[in-house]
Amino acid sequence: MKKDYIFTPGPTPVPLDVGMAQVNMVHHRSGDFGEILRRVLDGLKYVYRTKNDVFIFASSGTGAMEAAVANCFSPGDKVIVFSGGKFGERFVDISRFFGLDVLVSEYEWGTCANPEVLSRQLRANPDTKGVMLTHSETSTGVVNDVEAFGQIVAQTPALFIVDAISSLGAIEFETDAWNVDVAISGSQKGLMTPPGLSFVAVSDKAWKAVESSKLPRYYFCFKSAKKSQSKEIPETPYTPAITLIQAVDVALARIREEGLEKIYERHEVFGKATRAAVRALGLELFAKDNSRANICTSVVSPEGINSGELVKFMRNKFGVFISGGQAKLKGKIFRLAHVGYFDRFDIISQISALEFGLGNFGYEFEPGSGVSACMKVLMESEV
Amino acid sequence: MKKDYIFTPGPTPVPLDVGMAQVNMVHHRSGDFGEILRRVLDGLKYVYRTKNDVFIFASSGTGAMEAAVANCFSPGDKVIVFSGGKFGERFVDISRFFGLDVLVSEYEWGTCANPEVLSRQLRANPDTKGVMLTHSETSTGVVNDVEAFGQIVAQTPALFIVDAISSLGAIEFETDAWNVDVAISGSQKGLMTPPGLSFVAVSDKAWKAVESSKLPRYYFCFKSAKKSQSKEIPETPYTPAITLIQAVDVALARIREEGLEKIYERHEVFGKATRAAVRALGLELFAKDNSRANICTSVVSPEGINSGELVKFMRNKFGVFISGGQAKLKGKIFRLAHVGYFDRFDIISQISALEFGLGNFGYEFEPGSGVSACMKVLMESEV
Repeated sequence: MKKDYIFTPGPTPVPLDVGMAQVNMVHHRSGDFGEILRRVLDGLKYVYRTKNDVFIFASSGTGAMEAAVANCFSPGDKVIVFSGGKFGERFVDISRFFGLDVLVSEYEWGTCANPEVLSRQLRANPDTKGVMLTHSETSTGVVNDVEAFGQIVAQTPALFIVDAISSLGAIEFETDAWNVDVAISGSQKGLMTPPGLSFVAVSDKAWKAVESSKLPRYYFCFKSAKKSQSKEIPETPYTPAITLIQAVDVALARIREEGLEKIYERHEVFGKATRAAVRALGLELFAKDNSRANICTSVVSPEGINSGELVKFMRNKFGVFISGGQAKLKGKIFRLAHVGYFDRFDIISQISALEFGLGNFGYEFEPGSGVSACMKVLMESEV
Repeated sequence: MKKDYIFTPGPTPVPLDVGMAQVNMVHHRSGDFGEILRRVLDGLKYVYRTKNDVFIFASSGTGAMEAAVANCFSPGDKVIVFSGGKFGERFVDISRFFGLDVLVSEYEWGTCANPEVLSRQLRANPDTKGVMLTHSETSTGVVNDVEAFGQIVAQTPALFIVDAISSLGAIEFETDAWNVDVAISGSQKGLMTPPGLSFVAVSDKAWKAVESSKLPRYYFCFKSAKKSQSKEIPETPYTPAITLIQAVDVALARIREEGLEKIYERHEVFGKATRAAVRALGLELFAKDNSRANICTSVVSPEGINSGELVKFMRNKFGVFISGGQAKLKGKIFRLAHVGYFDRFDIISQISALEFGLGNFGYEFEPGSGVSACMKVLMESEV
């Protein structure tokens, strides 16, 4: 007998009713679909905490990152891109591919980006047209202080573009209050839906840039999206991924029912419980500044244990899917996820599976000590 | 009691097992997904009739049209784009947005593009880098002679790029034998899967152009796709639309089981049966050259009947979804689809619903005459 447990930071577990919502497809030029789309757009505004337009594309999150670049800038525009992990690097790559003048602001993997560095760089580069930041850098577990960055960027003409792909709908994210001009996300993380939809929330400040941007785009064009979505019965410019939109509609209803405050609290408690377990097992947290690191917990693999082997063993032996390290962290860290459709028993099962896994590789610890530490935090919480 | 019948040329009906395949998602970095992806890539090659690489993107078909342009050309490259309907116009738009030097070769809506015109234009423009053609122009019902065009383009250095979105897996399409360099398609037509996946088959001749192309692209980059898909366990560069790939896997197994020859024959018979019904009802076919028009049958709405009203009535009264006209054909034609997951009783129901609809608007005809003509063709066939 084998049961599978998806404990990865993306795709994340999908509730059965969300999965089932894909089975029976409505027609995308019917009023029924228009109603679903309207509800989804409203739901996204709720989750994004924004009055801005939110657009939906049939694509991975990376498509929406490209959309932000292609719609807001022109070749040669100077942008500051913060990069401290795989997803920051991706934003650097995209910006370069599109011919922007990219000032890469690197910060050490496992640490947070520093708002003071941004202030300095903006003073030295007053012609900066955009600042790109990853909210939750899933490759390291770090969650950056978007609010602090937003305050700084808002005082300049630059646009503030944030990759909120793995954070939206899970941890606090305030598009409007934090002055985020283009907030990028996707269906497959906090929104508990299979991958294939991406979203962008676009501020008035960003719209002005869109008007004058000279980079080519067609499929990801914000103006086309706005025109179609603004119709009396909202549409998308091209055939939408109907079944995924039906799925996210169900997921957004779940989010509304639980309420963002409760959801944020749940992720906070699960992050804390997971970190407590890791510490109790004598393991080292990879993300040193982890006060907001409530999407996934990155852990340094104990000496002599390749994290890739550990991950593989846990998958094959127990059907438990956790993630290893990516890029230069391959083999060195593993990541325990707690984003989206996770409840307390998922957290406990994950730590428990980790203990079985570590035991198999001869790591020494008191069996059950991780689970106990985890349960203690969970029992003390209101979640 | 109301039952819905989707008889539109996109999205097309989805078999229940294909729809159900979306419910339970495997993890996209697991071996299970790698196996599914490998099977899907093989299945696509079978349907495309190609030895070329086929790439999968999470996007609408329009995304793959943009991909073809962005990967194969550089700003200022001269291309000849054939346009005789909404989807030809889209290829013109995309090519212009990306800064190509576009020679628009217009042909009348409802007629086929003429290969002799291409020969003339290529002689007059020996510096042409690409020729774009729509195989099945779904807005008019016309199906172009890709084979004849391919023979002509193959004698020049130009690339032959074909939008086979609504035709692939339904009517004869030969990527290799017809010299198609970039063949574009999507999940939601002949492949009987919900929308959200697009595909491109890329020839060696096209690869050479990809190497020197200077247009920006990232999400739709052919090179990244090739790199990821060529791994021992194939992957996609960015998170794939897993549930849709699971669905198309089931659909492709159905296609293999029926076999392309049988599928082509079925579409031919259904096209012929539908045209026979239309004629028997005293209606006028919009596509004059309809020898290959086996995707959808476009019909001139009788005088005094707005096709949009007819379509709406049929939807609201009977739950039967047929399509009206698009763009300049709005109100003037309606379209009866027979692409993908259609069997004989769908064809009969569609004609029958049309008769009920026409009757309601006071059109004079012998009730049942359309259905009888349709059944006669079906009974005479081997399908």
